[in-house]
Amino acid sequence: MPRSVPLSPTPRSTLTRKKHRASTDRADLYRVLDEALVCHLGLVLAGSPVCVPTGYGRDGDTLYLHGSTGSGNIRAAAEGADVCVTVTILDGIVYARSLNNHSMNYRCAVVHGRPRLVTDAAEKLRGLRIVTEHLAPGSWDHAREPNAKELASVAVLALDLTETSVKIRAEGPAEQAEDVDRHDVWAGVLPIRTVVGPPEPATYVPDGVVVPTHIARRARI
Amino acid sequence: MPRSVPLSPTPRSTLTRKKHRASTDRADLYRVLDEALVCHLGLVLAGSPVCVPTGYGRDGDTLYLHGSTGSGNIRAAAEGADVCVTVTILDGIVYARSLNNHSMNYRCAVVHGRPRLVTDAAEKLRGLRIVTEHLAPGSWDHAREPNAKELASVAVLALDLTETSVKIRAEGPAEQAEDVDRHDVWAGVLPIRTVVGPPEPATYVPDGVVVPTHIARRARI
Repeated sequence: MPRSVPLSPTPRSTLTRKKHRASTDRADLYRVLDEALVCHLGLVLAGSPVCVPTGYGRDGDTLYLHGSTGSGNIRAAAEGADVCVTVTILDGIVYARSLNNHSMNYRCAVVHGRPRLVTDAAEKLRGLRIVTEHLAPGSWDHAREPNAKELASVAVLALDLTETSVKIRAEGPAEQAEDVDRHDVWAGVLPIRTVVGPPEPATYVPDGVVVPTHIARRARI
Repeated sequence: MPRSVPLSPTPRSTLTRKKHRASTDRADLYRVLDEALVCHLGLVLAGSPVCVPTGYGRDGDTLYLHGSTGSGNIRAAAEGADVCVTVTILDGIVYARSLNNHSMNYRCAVVHGRPRLVTDAAEKLRGLRIVTEHLAPGSWDHAREPNAKELASVAVLALDLTETSVKIRAEGPAEQAEDVDRHDVWAGVLPIRTVVGPPEPATYVPDGVVVPTHIARRARI
């Protein structure tokens, strides 16, 4: 799918509320997916809804997920279960002059679909690379690559970014008419950010082993 | 339910993988729920899994959720649908000497159950207070309280914290035997934190209106 294809909602990926917050720009979908590190994978297991956090990565219009072949959630998804993958970034706490208009600023991407279990060896390795580099950019060329046993223990799933929605709130508080003139009351936004702290070496790393550039850069040391 | 009651998992709230990461301490459940601001609400809507972010708050062993009465997800949950509420806090990126042992440090609480639509007026107001004070501590006594019309537009759901699980990873990387002696390769954790930035007043707030203490304290100004 070319980059220029817009989001193409189906009934279940069409917002029914706060429709003005729906983005129709595929670039917004990419930005949300590329910025967050964790998604929530929703599926139905033995009749019950399940919602679990997991890592992921994006390659064009394919979302890759991975997990242990021993995971019931991953097995169900690999066997063709419908899933809902949701990525949420909280950007701010919105303080209005009324309690009812308190809100959050956020960006949320939702992907519906049936993932495909990746069986081709080359694509499986590429999928793992996408997921790993999303979590830890630079690690693929730095750490030991997976051996045959490790590869066999992990399942890679591919989910097309065809049935998606993006919802964004990025503004100050809304107010009711009766609150607009209450100029003694502060209103506004507390922005929220995710920051990376200084690297903490593992206990078994000898003193003097330098933090690699791709990690130091991320921690801004 | 007294504070001392431990987590009581059913089959669907019993971890099947990485069981050593399961906490059986109810205090861990409370800590995760009390620290995060957003949960993901998983349910089944028209046969499809849905997973959406939403606010919440905890009062003892009751989780309160709220949402517009116009929301299909909230309506389904209010009508007795099974839900899975998941709260995830990402604490760090774990760099191992092998790609396969790259991981995340996180704390994740999962609650299964059928929410109860709160119909009692006093409990509804208390539930809204719990949810609002969780997002914006101090606002309940500062901002205008909801009027009858606003109260009618919002649904409050109560979910008992009886069928829950907590999974925590809070440690350095694991390594395979073959990687333990590779002392030229750094391994460790990049900690991740969520921080609150300086308050951004709404455009309509006149200069000179002081940021209230409960907000300034949170932003550490």
